Amino acid sequence: MATAEPTAHALIARHRPTLDQALEAIRTRAYWSPHPEHPKAYGEHGSLDAAAGKAAFDALLGSRFDLGQPGTDDWVGGEVSPYGVELGVTYPHADLDVLLPAMKAGQRAWRDAGPEARAAVCLEILKRISDRTHEFAHAVMHTSGQAFMMAFQAGGPHAQDRGLEAVAYAYAEQVRTPGTAEWSKPQGKRDPLTLTKRFTAVPRGIALMIGCNTFPTWNGYPGLFASLATGNAVLVKPHPRAVLPLALTVRVAREVLAEAGHDPNLVALAAERPGEGIAKTLATRLEIRIIDYTGSTAFGDWLEANARQARVYTEKAGVNTVVVESAGDYKGMLANLAFSLSLYSGQMCTTPQNLLIPRDGIRTDQGHKSFDEVTADLAQAVDGLLGDDARANALLGAIVNPDVKARLEAASALGEVALASREITHPDFPDAVVRTPVIVKLDGAKPDAEAAYMSECFGPVSFAVAVDSAADAVELLRRTVREKGAMTVGAYTMDEEVERAVEEVCLEEAAQLSLNLTGGVYVNQTAAFSDFHGSGGNPAANAALCDAAFVADRFRTVEVRREA
Amino acid sequence: MATAEPTAHALIARHRPTLDQALEAIRTRAYWSPHPEHPKAYGEHGSLDAAAGKAAFDALLGSRFDLGQPGTDDWVGGEVSPYGVELGVTYPHADLDVLLPAMKAGQRAWRDAGPEARAAVCLEILKRISDRTHEFAHAVMHTSGQAFMMAFQAGGPHAQDRGLEAVAYAYAEQVRTPGTAEWSKPQGKRDPLTLTKRFTAVPRGIALMIGCNTFPTWNGYPGLFASLATGNAVLVKPHPRAVLPLALTVRVAREVLAEAGHDPNLVALAAERPGEGIAKTLATRLEIRIIDYTGSTAFGDWLEANARQARVYTEKAGVNTVVVESAGDYKGMLANLAFSLSLYSGQMCTTPQNLLIPRDGIRTDQGHKSFDEVTADLAQAVDGLLGDDARANALLGAIVNPDVKARLEAASALGEVALASREITHPDFPDAVVRTPVIVKLDGAKPDAEAAYMSECFGPVSFAVAVDSAADAVELLRRTVREKGAMTVGAYTMDEEVERAVEEVCLEEAAQLSLNLTGGVYVNQTAAFSDFHGSGGNPAANAALCDAAFVADRFRTVEVRREA
Repeated sequence: MATAEPTAHALIARHRPTLDQALEAIRTRAYWSPHPEHPKAYGEHGSLDAAAGKAAFDALLGSRFDLGQPGTDDWVGGEVSPYGVELGVTYPHADLDVLLPAMKAGQRAWRDAGPEARAAVCLEILKRISDRTHEFAHAVMHTSGQAFMMAFQAGGPHAQDRGLEAVAYAYAEQVRTPGTAEWSKPQGKRDPLTLTKRFTAVPRGIALMIGCNTFPTWNGYPGLFASLATGNAVLVKPHPRAVLPLALTVRVAREVLAEAGHDPNLVALAAERPGEGIAKTLATRLEIRIIDYTGSTAFGDWLEANARQARVYTEKAGVNTVVVESAGDYKGMLANLAFSLSLYSGQMCTTPQNLLIPRDGIRTDQGHKSFDEVTADLAQAVDGLLGDDARANALLGAIVNPDVKARLEAASALGEVALASREITHPDFPDAVVRTPVIVKLDGAKPDAEAAYMSECFGPVSFAVAVDSAADAVELLRRTVREKGAMTVGAYTMDEEVERAVEEVCLEEAAQLSLNLTGGVYVNQTAAFSDFHGSGGNPAANAALCDAAFVADRFRTVEVRREA
Repeated sequence: MATAEPTAHALIARHRPTLDQALEAIRTRAYWSPHPEHPKAYGEHGSLDAAAGKAAFDALLGSRFDLGQPGTDDWVGGEVSPYGVELGVTYPHADLDVLLPAMKAGQRAWRDAGPEARAAVCLEILKRISDRTHEFAHAVMHTSGQAFMMAFQAGGPHAQDRGLEAVAYAYAEQVRTPGTAEWSKPQGKRDPLTLTKRFTAVPRGIALMIGCNTFPTWNGYPGLFASLATGNAVLVKPHPRAVLPLALTVRVAREVLAEAGHDPNLVALAAERPGEGIAKTLATRLEIRIIDYTGSTAFGDWLEANARQARVYTEKAGVNTVVVESAGDYKGMLANLAFSLSLYSGQMCTTPQNLLIPRDGIRTDQGHKSFDEVTADLAQAVDGLLGDDARANALLGAIVNPDVKARLEAASALGEVALASREITHPDFPDAVVRTPVIVKLDGAKPDAEAAYMSECFGPVSFAVAVDSAADAVELLRRTVREKGAMTVGAYTMDEEVERAVEEVCLEEAAQLSLNLTGGVYVNQTAAFSDFHGSGGNPAANAALCDAAFVADRFRTVEVRREA
């Protein structure tokens, strides 16, 4: 281990400009990213190019992923790519009574390093992850089922952006209180009362990050880096089907920590045996003081109710709505929606599910369109987008697990099918389950349809819901967000009054709204440093990525005061 | 009702300089307060002087306190001053199914007013409360039992400071994200993707502030003003024995809101019938999305476990420790501790309870002092401080309720009494229960003593706990803070190693530490804008007054984005 001091100075010098740019970006919320999106941008300045990244990934397959963690009592694994490949990687299984105390050993030095040095170490971790984006892309692809380009971008630069954003917020929050203060209170003719005060940001303890299957890095990095940057140790509990991207992350973090003179056990992996359900055990350990979780509402609610010793940040299920009231650019709307419904087979927490369309049809720049015309045109737009199998494979990726496939297959029985799902063959991976999305028509006025559209049907399933009017759509939107939560809301309208009504629902129910998107930005995508992911104010999530509330309670400020 | 716009401009113009000073103070944490501490400072510029304040208070006695709230179905009251006076004031009892919807009616306009206008309204409320500090002082005195000067300062300017501090934090947090942003993402040779984004701070809903008996305004204002400034409506549920100071607060808030063109029902009072236990009913109403609570650990834990629809901020019981290892200014230490133990009869959540003293005695500037000498000298210091009855009454105030009196009377059976409590007669209020503090010696090595010193004994009871060594004291300090929580920790030591060890415990267990106080600053007092009250990181409280974490989750930021 190096001594921390000189390394800290060097790391701060290297990364302070990036940190400052990130701080400026979250203040202006203009576009910014230090992480290139294009695969060809990698291969210089120490980063792996496409071939080297692929080779690095291939070398991992079938290997024992040794992290050198204390208390390793077994080796566990069993990931099978949604593309059909068995990864064959085994990971350390931890004896928690050894690992957790070991994670606390380095916490004092990590705390004493201070916010700036911690931010610099976090940025170095992100930089090294960035250099290996090609390797991570394959790891994300073969655990989430995302197509390569999406795994590359969302699992690489976009996830790194979200991690950096969290570091910037964490840094800003910790330095809002000065390190020291001189306090002098006048006492009339007597001498003033004077105190010298020292303020220290202290961590809560060990943070637990529970990863998800679909976006292991993108959804995992904000909590991981927010906790680490605020001085906590972080235990990473990946989804059993998406261990590799987070194991790689943990390895890089441990390497950087050790090189910076810190204890590598500040970041550790908790892989589990099949069916072990280790998250419940971990979540209620007294050492665990912060939990970040992305996944089902049932387990998120369980965590909030039972992990009482911890501050719990959850992203759970929601039902995302798009109100389609009228369209000033009908073709643009159809193309935009078709892409949103198709991307990663709708397996995003931000994918629209319910399209609320007046049963009497809508006004558009192409004339009046009936409900059936809108659904048929949308179906055609999706068909057009996915007509070419290569393009379809590049957009859809693979169905991540059998549950999603089962839901997709059951969906066509829920109503009249406007667009049937079809199978696509993947040229490289014959065992991959690739499916185009299904669109089912439902009548919003019929009580038996409500069970379908008022539940999250995660996957490539959307409902074209016939509503009586724009006002009816707005009210259904409100009820859906209030009762079921929503990560995203979209609306298409040329009517100012309808626009205001939709906006008002989103403000009152705390949902993030995208209006009249017809170009290359989609309702299911958000950009770090500018867009918030979720609001933290409706049942879909109790936190937003990323704001001050996401970081401010991960540390506490301890004051030591004495007479001056 | 005035229209909000012009009034908002006028209020902003009036209060922006104060807001800016508060923002600067929380950044530097130097001494600052706009609220005079001296009673004679009042009486000009529209503020009530002593006589007018007393007259205003007297006029309230025996009256019906009509707030003009909707849904008032009864009039309830029954406060009896700890000084023996029946207040005879009755307050509106609310039909919640009428009051709560009425509180939501003005929320949209309050939200749309924006952070600066809301801060200005809050500052106007605080200004008018400040002008009536003399009236509030009597109301606080005759509900909490505090002596007049303490009721005046802690219930007046210090409480107003804490309210203003919360407004400043709330404002700063809401404006960290800009109101609008232009986002432009380069697309190589193609046109950039461009979006226009609008960000709005939106409230969570209705906040519930549950007041306490001992510091109705000081402990109540931070939550009240943090919630109001972030756009929430606030329902104030006072302790049944301390309604008047908060009813006055609600009346002022409603007046200012109405004058500023807002709905006065944004702030309302929920008084209760004896034994009604309305807090439980309120705390689990779906409309209630934020709760601030100061009081018992049992009910605080109940709130955290059951009010799942709300963000819950609690200040609960703790056991405050002072480590007495050595003293560079022995007489200064004794005087300082004597004052801390006596002030308001130890009925502060910040009063020291356990004085950990090595059984072999301590090193001091007056030579070695045995354990028995230290306790005898401290007893003598308390006796000297309270020897004069007038001074004793001015410092002690009255015992707030029969439970505290019962605990005090039971304490002398717990061990050898180093200082016996004695009764003091109050010249003006013969029915007031005024008692000097008791100090009981306990042996930290005896298991049967542990039940006493490891529980909060709220009131004028402290324990001189004999420990084996400084190291033993440090370990007992750690265990006490970890298991029982602490609002304050004090330490007296000339030994750098001991100082570091105590500091390290406070950093690791997140407790606020005062070192070697011998002058006019006491461990149980904190100053707004500079000192944190509690840390939010140990079992005594889940939040600190006041930091970003205390305000950042009371609102959410909703983004509306569209193509530019």
